[in-house]
Amino acid sequence: MRRVLFLVISFHLFSLGTIYAQKQLLDVMPVPKHVELGEGWFEINSNLKVGIQGNPHHRIYAQTNRFLNRLGNKTGTFLKQGYADISSSPENPGLLIKVNRPAQVKFGEDESYQLSITDQGIQLDAETDIGAIYGLETLLQIIKSDSNGYYFPSLKIEDSPRFPWRGLMIDVARHFQPVAVIKRNIDGMAAVKMNVLHLHLSDDQGFRVESKLYPKLTSMGSDGFYYTQEQIKDIVRYADERGIRVYPEFDVPGHATAILTAYPEFASKEMVYQIERNAGVFDPTLDPTNPKTYEFLNNLFAEMASLFPDNYFHIGGDENEGKHWNENKDIQRFMRKKKIKDNHALQAYFNKNLLKNFETIGKKMVGWDEIIHEDLPNTAVIQSWRGLDNMEKAAKSGYKTMLSNGFYIDLMHAAEKHYLVEPLPDTLDLTEEERSNIIGGEATMWSELVTPYTIDSRIWPRTAAIAERLWSPKEVRDVDEMYRRMDIISLHLEQLGLQHLSSRDLILRNIANQTNIKPLQVLTGVCQPLQGYTRNPGGTMYQSYSPFLLFADACIADPPDAYNFNKLVEQYLAGEDENLKAIINYLSLWEANNDLFVEIAENTPILNEIAELSVNLSDIAGIGREALKYILEEEKPGEEWIERSRKISAKARKQGGRTELKIVGSIEQLIINCQ
Amino acid sequence: MRRVLFLVISFHLFSLGTIYAQKQLLDVMPVPKHVELGEGWFEINSNLKVGIQGNPHHRIYAQTNRFLNRLGNKTGTFLKQGYADISSSPENPGLLIKVNRPAQVKFGEDESYQLSITDQGIQLDAETDIGAIYGLETLLQIIKSDSNGYYFPSLKIEDSPRFPWRGLMIDVARHFQPVAVIKRNIDGMAAVKMNVLHLHLSDDQGFRVESKLYPKLTSMGSDGFYYTQEQIKDIVRYADERGIRVYPEFDVPGHATAILTAYPEFASKEMVYQIERNAGVFDPTLDPTNPKTYEFLNNLFAEMASLFPDNYFHIGGDENEGKHWNENKDIQRFMRKKKIKDNHALQAYFNKNLLKNFETIGKKMVGWDEIIHEDLPNTAVIQSWRGLDNMEKAAKSGYKTMLSNGFYIDLMHAAEKHYLVEPLPDTLDLTEEERSNIIGGEATMWSELVTPYTIDSRIWPRTAAIAERLWSPKEVRDVDEMYRRMDIISLHLEQLGLQHLSSRDLILRNIANQTNIKPLQVLTGVCQPLQGYTRNPGGTMYQSYSPFLLFADACIADPPDAYNFNKLVEQYLAGEDENLKAIINYLSLWEANNDLFVEIAENTPILNEIAELSVNLSDIAGIGREALKYILEEEKPGEEWIERSRKISAKARKQGGRTELKIVGSIEQLIINCQ
Repeated sequence: MRRVLFLVISFHLFSLGTIYAQKQLLDVMPVPKHVELGEGWFEINSNLKVGIQGNPHHRIYAQTNRFLNRLGNKTGTFLKQGYADISSSPENPGLLIKVNRPAQVKFGEDESYQLSITDQGIQLDAETDIGAIYGLETLLQIIKSDSNGYYFPSLKIEDSPRFPWRGLMIDVARHFQPVAVIKRNIDGMAAVKMNVLHLHLSDDQGFRVESKLYPKLTSMGSDGFYYTQEQIKDIVRYADERGIRVYPEFDVPGHATAILTAYPEFASKEMVYQIERNAGVFDPTLDPTNPKTYEFLNNLFAEMASLFPDNYFHIGGDENEGKHWNENKDIQRFMRKKKIKDNHALQAYFNKNLLKNFETIGKKMVGWDEIIHEDLPNTAVIQSWRGLDNMEKAAKSGYKTMLSNGFYIDLMHAAEKHYLVEPLPDTLDLTEEERSNIIGGEATMWSELVTPYTIDSRIWPRTAAIAERLWSPKEVRDVDEMYRRMDIISLHLEQLGLQHLSSRDLILRNIANQTNIKPLQVLTGVCQPLQGYTRNPGGTMYQSYSPFLLFADACIADPPDAYNFNKLVEQYLAGEDENLKAIINYLSLWEANNDLFVEIAENTPILNEIAELSVNLSDIAGIGREALKYILEEEKPGEEWIERSRKISAKARKQGGRTELKIVGSIEQLIINCQ
Repeated sequence: MRRVLFLVISFHLFSLGTIYAQKQLLDVMPVPKHVELGEGWFEINSNLKVGIQGNPHHRIYAQTNRFLNRLGNKTGTFLKQGYADISSSPENPGLLIKVNRPAQVKFGEDESYQLSITDQGIQLDAETDIGAIYGLETLLQIIKSDSNGYYFPSLKIEDSPRFPWRGLMIDVARHFQPVAVIKRNIDGMAAVKMNVLHLHLSDDQGFRVESKLYPKLTSMGSDGFYYTQEQIKDIVRYADERGIRVYPEFDVPGHATAILTAYPEFASKEMVYQIERNAGVFDPTLDPTNPKTYEFLNNLFAEMASLFPDNYFHIGGDENEGKHWNENKDIQRFMRKKKIKDNHALQAYFNKNLLKNFETIGKKMVGWDEIIHEDLPNTAVIQSWRGLDNMEKAAKSGYKTMLSNGFYIDLMHAAEKHYLVEPLPDTLDLTEEERSNIIGGEATMWSELVTPYTIDSRIWPRTAAIAERLWSPKEVRDVDEMYRRMDIISLHLEQLGLQHLSSRDLILRNIANQTNIKPLQVLTGVCQPLQGYTRNPGGTMYQSYSPFLLFADACIADPPDAYNFNKLVEQYLAGEDENLKAIINYLSLWEANNDLFVEIAENTPILNEIAELSVNLSDIAGIGREALKYILEEEKPGEEWIERSRKISAKARKQGGRTELKIVGSIEQLIINCQ
């Protein structure tokens, strides 16, 4: 046998944890529903041919071409077949794709597929071409190699998603993201089997689509950063080819500063409006009592709806505090007259008015969970962002709903935190039917603090963890195993053109103003941008035009060395002595790093903001090394040392360059353990 | 004085070499025509405001916004001004831009600018906004810093280009390059003051623009990879905003396989045409005797011309061997009848026929130097690619001409080689008037072996050397100084979004299938892709769909460690003993590298192609270290050692992974010197 012998293992949902704990060889993310490993393998060589049979949509051909290209790049194989043949399927192809019918890229489409690999060949069956596209992605993720070459292991996979709505929202209003950024992220989504791209297209900071009816929206409300209608169509086409829906959000009646900068006549307050440069919740609000507001929105939404073939259309509806409604006597009079009891009811009145037009334009309304109101018909879809309880309430009230609370990837929490969010916990007080109203979730990439240079490193690879939550069986939730596969999927994503890995060094070269960035790389290995809303206090430390090519922008939510080190220490303190050497290596690296940092930081004032941070890392690493020495030599430190360690540890907890060191807790554990 | 004191130096053209040999502090590339350094500096802080006066085209506002953004990113300054104000210029701005008149983006437009920096402020004067745009680029390149902060040094610059045609040709036919790739390269061009983008839009391997008149050109001749007409307009708009002309090339009558795949009725030979997958010169040729060929081309060119506002339009005309003309009896009869004596004359007949339409569409014809013929009017512009003598001939015949011979950046020669190509050597046998026919040059990025992943690392930073040749005074030609500044401009280019630096590690992670790529990085430091046409023997080793994410694709034409090492050895052998330590460090690094390579190469067959190369580097480095030891200990090696060194050196000259080691020559020098 030239290959590792694969054990025949039929693993079902409940044994997945165990299987992965055994470091099984499948690296697929998200984990398929059902996998049965076989014996043997199918060799990848230049003769591999792909045949396509059945009745697929033509998108399967373009996807097969990309599959062949990626397979070549991943294995260095000079395939003789470069393109799938539309006119005829080759005889005895190594990979046979059979598709029953063309998919429609719409909510609820069949996305299942079955893969069967033997030493004789590969068969990929799917009801639709979208299922087949997912099957091709899985194939690229299970390529194995040994010294003789690359191969696909023998196996059978049956796969289909747990939830039909697996989305990523990208906010292109706070910082505009060019078409190329959107396209490469669509590729990333397809690789982890996500199927909905939600574009947040208007907000206080900008309106981002060309309107031919209302051209001032972009000439006055976009700083020149917007998609032409042709570009929107291009994005939709690109996503459709990968089985991904695209639907737009135009946030009303709040978050409307950009709209009101262009058309102040629809405002609740007479004043001069200017594009907002800060982050936060602002007062400018559309006037829900003005019939012309509806005329404007109905026309605008109809125009925008024509660009997006998807059945869903998001009206925002969040964070409207109604201050300008309170200040406007006409609006107050209107409310009394119509017996509208509060601002929430006034917003429901507004939404209901909008809803009339939605039938005309053939769309279903989606909104953030503030739009829930007894007056709002439950044809609307609720995006739950303020908590599971809102989702529960929405589902109970008969709305379809999807979860974003817990999936706010802009907040820079570790992937683990998002991974463990369960959209359907047993604790929900819902009937089986009500539970079926929970249709999935969306990761939300708010962009106050990201630019085209950094957005990939905020979205990826972390969103793969959310994709797995929404695709894979509920029981798949082993965090270490998730991180192991996330590192692998990360390379797949980079091959697709995503810049989440390369952007770090780009930024470090920018701030170092040279190519020697070693000491900065060491720092990014352990530093995490400040989490939650703390990086940008009050929403005013950064303006939308502030620099975002600085140290914090090179750091990521899961700094890899910190993750490894914390694991090592945890295991070491639990008795795994063999970790000692690796721990000491890390501590020595960090302790020595400040001297190297100082060398490159000379005359480079952009690095001043992390000078203290660099000192703190070296100091705390030094203390950690000393603590280890006490432990190893079974000595106790004196009072003076303990006092010093406390001071250094407190200092090491301070932010620097809007980031913080993520290894302090582990070193504190060493300090405690040596006393 | 808190700053370094700048010497007042008025340096004129002929003293530039000396000035730079003194390691002057200006890092601008291309070198300005005239620089006078002053005393003092203008501090960069958050209060910096930019005012714009005069009568510029609006493009200066967008460019100023980008300037502010880049200045913020480079210095970490949180500028209070984020956008240039179109409605009013601020009072007492730190930077005042004065522009006389709006530029037209066309051949021969005024591109000059003057910069004056004192501690009181910066004034940028220009006849047109394009000159002002260049002045802003210069400003970004002269930012200095010390421990106190960032500043602009006091100086006066008067600058204007030597040649009015400073181009980059990108071949998007052999490998299609998406809009995003073109846009980022336009940004790179603007940074080095290039002003013409020449798009090679059709060839045997593809036709790359949507034609509404002839839709089969893309439906059958592009594999689905082409620009929509809207995308072309978007590219032209983007370039115009940066002062860059865009003009198209549609290569006829040869290089026409893609056209004939779609419309075989215009062919010289009746046969089945298919998109070409290999590289080289192929036979398919348009029929110049068929009136319908001209109807087709006239319609097509008129349609294409309407997308490109530039006055120039390139018809290719190269490498037509006319084999199918020879084989076609009707064509032979036609030639006899019309007294057309040979294929070259037939092509001139073809070109003259096309030229009639060029007045109608309002364009000047450009072609490769094969189109020169006594029958071709000298309103045509000649792109000289086959040698200086062809350029001389063109200029003598009264054609305007620009040089590409020597600027073939696809051939992977060191930047030095291109840098030293002089378009107007004293040796040309031309009158002053004939010399003025030589209007500049174009770097040519043929794309047989490049993809969107690697094109940036083939174009940049090397093209900056060509840009300098075409912009700066003739006397600027110090190679070491050019390399010094090229390393600096390289970082500017990366900040603009170019991926020439980041693509290396992306590719290495792809082939290593992991993030530990250290031993591969060491290899790329000394390996150069095979030069000239040797990487792809016969044009058939690679097909257009072959993998181009392999080791050779991570290597560049100027491998940095090889450059440094070769310098060190050269200087050491000339007596600079202090280089010894650095030389030994390199040799030790390389000698130890193969063990590390072997570790990551296990079970990664994609690395097999460079396994020998890795061994060879370690072996030759070991021999080099031994040679040094002989030299240092003033001993002579024995016959056996000499024989072994010869074998190892011969082995080290072999290619691996389509690259070669660029340090063998220097080590051979050490070997010779120890004997």
